[in-house]
Amino acid sequence: MTGNYQINSPSELRALPQEVLPELSQELRNFLIDHIATHGGHFSSSLGVVELTIAVHYVFNTPKDKLIWDVGHQAYIHKLLTGRAARFHSNRLLGGISGFPVMEENNFDAFGTGHSSTSLSAILGMACAARYKGDNSRQHIAVIGDGAMTAGLAFEALNNIGFEQPNLLIILNDNDMSIDAGTGALQNYLTDLTSGQAYNQFKSQIKKLLSTHKDRTQWSIAAIRKIEKLIKTGLFASSNIFEALGIRYFGPVDGHNLHKLIKIFEQLKHIPGPKIVHCVTQKGKGFTPAMLNKAEWHATGKFDKLTGIQLENQLPQLYKETFQQVLGETLIQLAQHNSRIIAISPAMLSGSRLTAMKQQMPNRVFDVGICEQHAITFSAGLAADGLLPFCVIYSTFLQRAYDQLIHDVALQKLPVVFCIDRAGVVGPDGPTHQGAFDIAFLRCIPNIAGASPMTLTDFKNLLFTAQDITLDGPLAIRYPKGPGSREKQSDKFTRLEIGKGRRLCSGQDIAILSLGPVGQYAQDACYELLREGMQVGHYDLRFFKPLDEVLLHEVFQSYSYIITVEDGCIAGGVGTAVLEFMAEHGYSATLKRLGLPDTFAVQGTQQQLHQLYYYDKQAIIATVRQLYTGPLESAGSGCSLKPNESSPNS
Amino acid sequence: MTGNYQINSPSELRALPQEVLPELSQELRNFLIDHIATHGGHFSSSLGVVELTIAVHYVFNTPKDKLIWDVGHQAYIHKLLTGRAARFHSNRLLGGISGFPVMEENNFDAFGTGHSSTSLSAILGMACAARYKGDNSRQHIAVIGDGAMTAGLAFEALNNIGFEQPNLLIILNDNDMSIDAGTGALQNYLTDLTSGQAYNQFKSQIKKLLSTHKDRTQWSIAAIRKIEKLIKTGLFASSNIFEALGIRYFGPVDGHNLHKLIKIFEQLKHIPGPKIVHCVTQKGKGFTPAMLNKAEWHATGKFDKLTGIQLENQLPQLYKETFQQVLGETLIQLAQHNSRIIAISPAMLSGSRLTAMKQQMPNRVFDVGICEQHAITFSAGLAADGLLPFCVIYSTFLQRAYDQLIHDVALQKLPVVFCIDRAGVVGPDGPTHQGAFDIAFLRCIPNIAGASPMTLTDFKNLLFTAQDITLDGPLAIRYPKGPGSREKQSDKFTRLEIGKGRRLCSGQDIAILSLGPVGQYAQDACYELLREGMQVGHYDLRFFKPLDEVLLHEVFQSYSYIITVEDGCIAGGVGTAVLEFMAEHGYSATLKRLGLPDTFAVQGTQQQLHQLYYYDKQAIIATVRQLYTGPLESAGSGCSLKPNESSPNS
Repeated sequence: MTGNYQINSPSELRALPQEVLPELSQELRNFLIDHIATHGGHFSSSLGVVELTIAVHYVFNTPKDKLIWDVGHQAYIHKLLTGRAARFHSNRLLGGISGFPVMEENNFDAFGTGHSSTSLSAILGMACAARYKGDNSRQHIAVIGDGAMTAGLAFEALNNIGFEQPNLLIILNDNDMSIDAGTGALQNYLTDLTSGQAYNQFKSQIKKLLSTHKDRTQWSIAAIRKIEKLIKTGLFASSNIFEALGIRYFGPVDGHNLHKLIKIFEQLKHIPGPKIVHCVTQKGKGFTPAMLNKAEWHATGKFDKLTGIQLENQLPQLYKETFQQVLGETLIQLAQHNSRIIAISPAMLSGSRLTAMKQQMPNRVFDVGICEQHAITFSAGLAADGLLPFCVIYSTFLQRAYDQLIHDVALQKLPVVFCIDRAGVVGPDGPTHQGAFDIAFLRCIPNIAGASPMTLTDFKNLLFTAQDITLDGPLAIRYPKGPGSREKQSDKFTRLEIGKGRRLCSGQDIAILSLGPVGQYAQDACYELLREGMQVGHYDLRFFKPLDEVLLHEVFQSYSYIITVEDGCIAGGVGTAVLEFMAEHGYSATLKRLGLPDTFAVQGTQQQLHQLYYYDKQAIIATVRQLYTGPLESAGSGCSLKPNESSPNS
Repeated sequence: MTGNYQINSPSELRALPQEVLPELSQELRNFLIDHIATHGGHFSSSLGVVELTIAVHYVFNTPKDKLIWDVGHQAYIHKLLTGRAARFHSNRLLGGISGFPVMEENNFDAFGTGHSSTSLSAILGMACAARYKGDNSRQHIAVIGDGAMTAGLAFEALNNIGFEQPNLLIILNDNDMSIDAGTGALQNYLTDLTSGQAYNQFKSQIKKLLSTHKDRTQWSIAAIRKIEKLIKTGLFASSNIFEALGIRYFGPVDGHNLHKLIKIFEQLKHIPGPKIVHCVTQKGKGFTPAMLNKAEWHATGKFDKLTGIQLENQLPQLYKETFQQVLGETLIQLAQHNSRIIAISPAMLSGSRLTAMKQQMPNRVFDVGICEQHAITFSAGLAADGLLPFCVIYSTFLQRAYDQLIHDVALQKLPVVFCIDRAGVVGPDGPTHQGAFDIAFLRCIPNIAGASPMTLTDFKNLLFTAQDITLDGPLAIRYPKGPGSREKQSDKFTRLEIGKGRRLCSGQDIAILSLGPVGQYAQDACYELLREGMQVGHYDLRFFKPLDEVLLHEVFQSYSYIITVEDGCIAGGVGTAVLEFMAEHGYSATLKRLGLPDTFAVQGTQQQLHQLYYYDKQAIIATVRQLYTGPLESAGSGCSLKPNESSPNS
């Protein structure tokens, strides 16, 4: 970090006089804008907490005092102040520092946070641990956004914090939104608190009432004051939603006023028990375009920092269209003709490309906020009443609604369509956000059908097909982040058969079974091997449940060497499903499964990770060569899809 | 149902004059007490809602009006009133009616509920569906207990209900507890509301203040009244926790006063928007022993209805001791010597047998309420600070904290010990509560070790071993509900090796690999086959992750026929893990997996289900006979454990 104040640790920060801190905050803000303009990344959240971050580290004795950043992408400034400025250019890159706090990365990261709303439970754990050990010497602080506060986990924590009454401080970073505009009654309530509406209205009514008394004397004025005080400290306080749960409420405070923040944090240090301080901040503060369009600037690619013009995403030439775009456009098309269709998203409208549908059909798109559990059970309620909910949710966040999926949807045989976005490796967000496990954790649930399209064309047709699911239960369609390929086909929709895959290349002795867009790697591998005279079969499974048994019988009767390829964990994945089929039917073949190994996949581009974890085109080719050394004759291509010398998604 | 009012449907109920309803409620209560005394079952919750159930069906036009019972075990009276009295003797039995509402069972069951806190999201789905369809003709009602209200899912739903503002009625059944005594700040708050504490205090202070004015005239009295009204309808209302979320609050109401309930439900019918009515009830109302000891009588076995003396549970002769008892006793023993140990339970202290530890070491046992997500992330926080949390949670409820397990524990490599109770089939609770999926959904997660003890002895030793987990991440120990067997061994603890199984019988050509107490079936099968001269190998895998590779190499090098047995779903289960090992190492064998098939397992006793789903002793013997027809010579037993002609758990 360049600038006047090259702070490498909070202790250096604490040595600065308070007067220079505003200048430091400007310096940090400039650094961040420069960095994101040239590298991309999560942006607005961190810009909004520059002063707050400085104030926290200035007042509290980190890392001895425990500080947890909820949804870690607001922690960039924290990273800069805790010795990671020099490595910040590697943020979110393969081998670089994480975009989120990570315990192993730095001892100022008291807890690893990528998913939202975990900080309150974790900080309560630490505070209870300190109390149990009789350690009164340290403070416990969690910084949590208003959007994160709507998640059930945060409420469960508040309920337990109020009950346990440990010493801890919650800093509520209220910027009136999560990623998309804020939704939910809680956020309305926070706005009321901020504006002091309820209180002011009551006060003016009392004033008016007392003014009707003819004796407008000293007594009357004093009485109003006393009543005001009573209201403020007594009833109002005790029925504020946080106070009601036993947590003392302070604020609202201007979250960009450094001196006020420092003053109140200093005061709060000495107040025992659980406290919440309500800081009002502006997402994107200091960068006008980000302040004007918060959703768009939540995370961004590279941009021109003077004009704010976002530079075009560098997608591979072949694939410009993304699965997300197809989802957004197709759902609108289908919904126009099918009044039963409703879309549900837990705070991911723009990421899931549902914004246009929300604008066109506002009463048919529900953004429920960061409430994954509710999103699924709410969908179940809609389905139980005859509607057809398309619940669009990221794979990694579906983990948070696993029980609801089992208990409220699958068990009850309700036709909910799960559009599982960000399935497979997601790229720079890294281990907290990889969509690695969904095939394994869905495959064991009865009554579910699950698919993964290889191409955008297939995706469109699966969404179309999902409309007439008459099967007893939900259909899950998993697809990756980013672009996919199109097949040459008419623009019309084609109805697909549930549980049916397809043969793309016929071969001899050795076959590849792929699921999802990694099938394009397999296809490319087949063509490359064909040029060498090796004819390898390729089947697109399309469904991981139910498996296409007809297709699999054909495969096991025709081939002795089989390779499965999937963009997900191989433990329990679709390759394993094929193994189960093989064992059940008494087939014997040499079967090699490619996909994510038994480790949390690191950050990097999707292509880098496909290569690193050994399921890209080269890995498939190498596996074919390793498995099969016998003679293979070429007999024409026998393949129905053209090769593309590129990644299935990047 | 015998008695004066043999009500077979709510329409018959509605035809009765209001005056006779108290008599009907007595009749229903007697029927229920008689039934549970002779059959056992969930008890106190339904006794507490007799009047409430009558009133709801009396006022609302079910089934057209949608009525959802949260945590369905409070719905026995509802079942009796909706045509299921004649079949009530089959409640919770194999082939009988369910102990929970089930959509397929009866059209008065608007939504299937077994797990807690789902009703609000589901009823919001239905209310939004009605609004979308322009249907104003029906009402939407959810009945939810105060314990269920603490779950994050319920809060997520409240937040969305307040935002959406549909017409729906929440009946809060406040009996001041879930199963164990109520915990959490929310419950304290509800008590405050009930007693009107905050409001009364404020009112008396205002009164006192105004009384200081010398002019104690009409004006002064009128002013107090006006201020009171302002407070009640204005500020107080708007800052009540529910009102703050945009839901109109009514009550508290005596939930046993039929006429009051009917009157208020009638009034609420005509008030648009979301409403909550706070009904105060007594769990176990009408049966003194249940009113005095609520936790014990939540669900009960058979009892003498005059004395309230509970008849002894009929455990099989051989096994009197349960896994739960061993957990409770062993944890106390270990904690006495290891100050790092802390126990955490989400509202299942008594079911998990942690009550004694809570009494002896109150500061080392946390009952966090129905907050599974929080239970896990809170444990993560404790572990991050150097403590060793034993998080005791039922398998079916762990589904609700899947993301927390992945993101907050496994990814962060935190040493949390998960004691997964009720793993495998649980018996009469049926499909909503079976612990069927945990092996499959845990096995795909990196950094986790997972075990399942065959015997109580092994369980004790696993808990002991868990103390020095130095592995990078959590250890999960799954065990079933009910009794287990003991091995002849000293009372001392033995340290086991993580990821190591054991050979119990050596055999020829055919071997059984078992996980957990079903190993006793395998052992018994081995002895029975041995008497016929067939020598079958038996290995207790003990760990489903990591697999004991040394043991498996031995198995695959020695046997051509292998049977795996587990008390869990076979899709992705431990048998599948063995298949993966086989494929990875290029072994070929005929492998047959026994366990739960790809269907939601029905209700019945555990033994009935083991038989039904074909993984009991007879199934193992039949599978051996089916697989292997070759010659086998007996060469002595070669087995290290004695046979027991009985179930592993019942």
